Amino acid sequence: MAPATIRIAMPDWLSDAIRNTPACPDDELKMQAVIGLAQRNLERDTGGPFAAGIFDLRTHRMIAAGVNVVVPTHLSCAHAEITALSLAQQQLGNHDLAAIGDFALASSTEPCAMCCGALPWSGIRRLICGATSADACAIGFDEGPRHPDWIAELTRRGITIATEVCRHEARAILQRYVQRGGPIYNGSAGARTP
Amino acid sequence: MAPATIRIAMPDWLSDAIRNTPACPDDELKMQAVIGLAQRNLERDTGGPFAAGIFDLRTHRMIAAGVNVVVPTHLSCAHAEITALSLAQQQLGNHDLAAIGDFALASSTEPCAMCCGALPWSGIRRLICGATSADACAIGFDEGPRHPDWIAELTRRGITIATEVCRHEARAILQRYVQRGGPIYNGSAGARTP
Repeated sequence: MAPATIRIAMPDWLSDAIRNTPACPDDELKMQAVIGLAQRNLERDTGGPFAAGIFDLRTHRMIAAGVNVVVPTHLSCAHAEITALSLAQQQLGNHDLAAIGDFALASSTEPCAMCCGALPWSGIRRLICGATSADACAIGFDEGPRHPDWIAELTRRGITIATEVCRHEARAILQRYVQRGGPIYNGSAGARTP
Repeated sequence: MAPATIRIAMPDWLSDAIRNTPACPDDELKMQAVIGLAQRNLERDTGGPFAAGIFDLRTHRMIAAGVNVVVPTHLSCAHAEITALSLAQQQLGNHDLAAIGDFALASSTEPCAMCCGALPWSGIRRLICGATSADACAIGFDEGPRHPDWIAELTRRGITIATEVCRHEARAILQRYVQRGGPIYNGSAGARTP
C-alpha cells in the first residue's frame, strides 16, 4: 500500500547553517548565503547543486531554507524552492506567506517550470535568482514547460524579481556538480518515446 | 528554527479507498475512481476539491493516490498531483517513474502551472484530466503562469494526454466546493500589490 505520509528530510547540517547565517540586507548577501548552502549540499554529497532561502524582508534574516534532495529522497518535486517554501510555511503555520508578512525567496538558479508555478501560490513577494536557466540547461537539465514570459507573469501577480545576482558564483556550483559526475535527474519518459 | 523535515499527511480514509479500488482498464474508469476520491475529500472536509491517482498501465491498478491538502497542512505545494506523484515515487523508491514502468496520472482537474511543470520530472507516461482549468478558474482559482502550449510541451516530452474525461462529474465537485464556502487559497501577494 502507498504510505499515508510524504516525508522530505533536509540534510542534518542545514539547520545549523541557517542558524549561523547573519542578517542579509541586500540581494547579493541573500544570494551569497544561498550559494553557500548549494556549495555545502554539493560538498557533503547530500543532493543536487541547488539551494533556496526564505528571507523576512523586515529583518533580512533567513527564516528557512531548503536544498535539492530529489535523488536521496526519491522525490522529483524535492527541488530547493519547493522545500524552502514548504519549510517556511509549515514553520509559520500558513500556506500563504503574504498573509503573514513580506518574504523573499532567493534561489541559486532560476526556477524551473514547476517551481515558477509554485511561486504565486506561496505568497512570496520577491524572487532573487543566481544562475540562469541557460546555465542549468548547459549541464543537461530540462527546465520544463515554463511560460515564455515567466517574469512578466510573476510580476503581474505581485512578485518582484532580480535575476543574475552573483550569477558567476552560482553557475560555478553547477559546473562543479557535473564535473564530479552528479546525476542529471530529468524524467526519462521522453527518452523512451517512439 | 525551521523544522528539518517536511511532512505531508494524507487523510486517514485514503489508504482504504485505494485498496478498495478495482482495476480501471480505461481512461473513464480511472477518472471515475479519482473523482470518487475528490468527492470524499470534499465530504469529509479533509482538503480541497482535487484528487489524483497513479495507475500502472500494465495492470491498470491504482498504485498510489493523493488529494489536495493545502489548507490543512499549511503547504501551498500540496496539490493532488504533487502528493500522488510523491507517494508513488516514495513507495517505488525512484524519483523517475519511467525508469520502473509505464504509469499514468489521472487528475480530477487539469494541472496548474506548478503541477504541469512537475510532470516531466516525474517520469509519468500519460496524463488523464477531468475538469478543465477554465472550470477551476470559474470558481476563483488562479492556475498560474502555465505555458500557453502546455499540451504540446508535455507531448514532446513523451507524455500522452487525454482531457475532459468525465468533465461534467469532475466539474460538479468544484461547484459543490465553492457552494459550501470552501477556501480559495490563491497566494495573496498580488492582492497587496500597489
